[in-house]
Amino acid sequence: MVKQERALRTREALITSAATVFDREGFSVASLTAISSLAGVSNGALHFHFSSKATLADSVEEAAGERLDRIVMAHEGAAGNALQLLVNTSHGLARGLTEDVVLRAGFELSRDQVRGRGPGLYRQWHRWVEEVLKRADGEGVLAEVTPEDAAASVVAATTGFEVLGPQNPEWLSHRTVTRFWQLLLPRLADASVLGTLVAAGSRPEGRP
Amino acid sequence: MVKQERALRTREALITSAATVFDREGFSVASLTAISSLAGVSNGALHFHFSSKATLADSVEEAAGERLDRIVMAHEGAAGNALQLLVNTSHGLARGLTEDVVLRAGFELSRDQVRGRGPGLYRQWHRWVEEVLKRADGEGVLAEVTPEDAAASVVAATTGFEVLGPQNPEWLSHRTVTRFWQLLLPRLADASVLGTLVAAGSRPEGRP
Repeated sequence: MVKQERALRTREALITSAATVFDREGFSVASLTAISSLAGVSNGALHFHFSSKATLADSVEEAAGERLDRIVMAHEGAAGNALQLLVNTSHGLARGLTEDVVLRAGFELSRDQVRGRGPGLYRQWHRWVEEVLKRADGEGVLAEVTPEDAAASVVAATTGFEVLGPQNPEWLSHRTVTRFWQLLLPRLADASVLGTLVAAGSRPEGRP
Repeated sequence: MVKQERALRTREALITSAATVFDREGFSVASLTAISSLAGVSNGALHFHFSSKATLADSVEEAAGERLDRIVMAHEGAAGNALQLLVNTSHGLARGLTEDVVLRAGFELSRDQVRGRGPGLYRQWHRWVEEVLKRADGEGVLAEVTPEDAAASVVAATTGFEVLGPQNPEWLSHRTVTRFWQLLLPRLADASVLGTLVAAGSRPEGRP
């Protein structure tokens, strides 16, 4: 039992170390030795958990997908309507991309043409954004736009924030995301709810 | 003279081949042998023109910067006002990213953290978008938004189209870019000109 717990902790440490090294050096350049040494384990221990750099990258992407799920779940229920939920969640995603190297590396891996595994996390995010905008439509809070068109523009912009963020953190700042929503919400929200929406996010704990 | 011309042609061919290989395999993995063989020249000829893979990448990025300049210049003058110019140019950029591997590879190199040269092309594009929105403000065609806020959202979205395009060409399609402008223009344009703006682009030759 204790042994199993230790194995699990080692696996987690390797995923975080791999994300850190992938984020810093890119998937192609990253060496397994750099990853195991950052995790404080031997190369043998790394190979016990992951048969190759590719499977390690798959596990980072999978862990990032779970974190994206958690960000989405964390805001469900707290927002008054689906549009506010979308705004709140996008702020949560921007914070996550700033603070959480596993989430950040997961997105980077999803667009690495060398790995060629396809747009995993982008598709997951896109699917959720489209779903929540359809929900907004059902609630009668979406203006005269289709959920699909609105989702495409929202996903494009959040992808831009994510891609430009590592070179200039301002792109993932609360200010930038808030201004994006100040610009877009009047086009997305039905007049009946526009005044109630908070572009800066309405998380109950008041965290920016 | 003939010799000089041939040298120039070889240099151009190497830049296009390098862009093709970088675009396909990424900067880190790309081999100089693959690049010279695609260009149909010897490794020696490659080294005569470029001392390293890094200088070759710098030249691809520089060539892409010139092409971005040409896209921007191509639409100047033809549009009625600065907002229409921005719309037309964004369509030109999306077409360029679809058709021109040098332009596409240049953007990819600009966000390659391994090269670590910084956001060259993104900054160039951002600077132009902000400048043209300031011009729109001066012309009195910009609505009640700041050129800086509008520019950030436009650059984020176009970056998203560029990044997601290689995995699904729909992101860089005329349709997607048009729908983005249909969504955003009512927030950017003063009521006096909104009706005259063409989200699909107003290129005189009528090319989609």
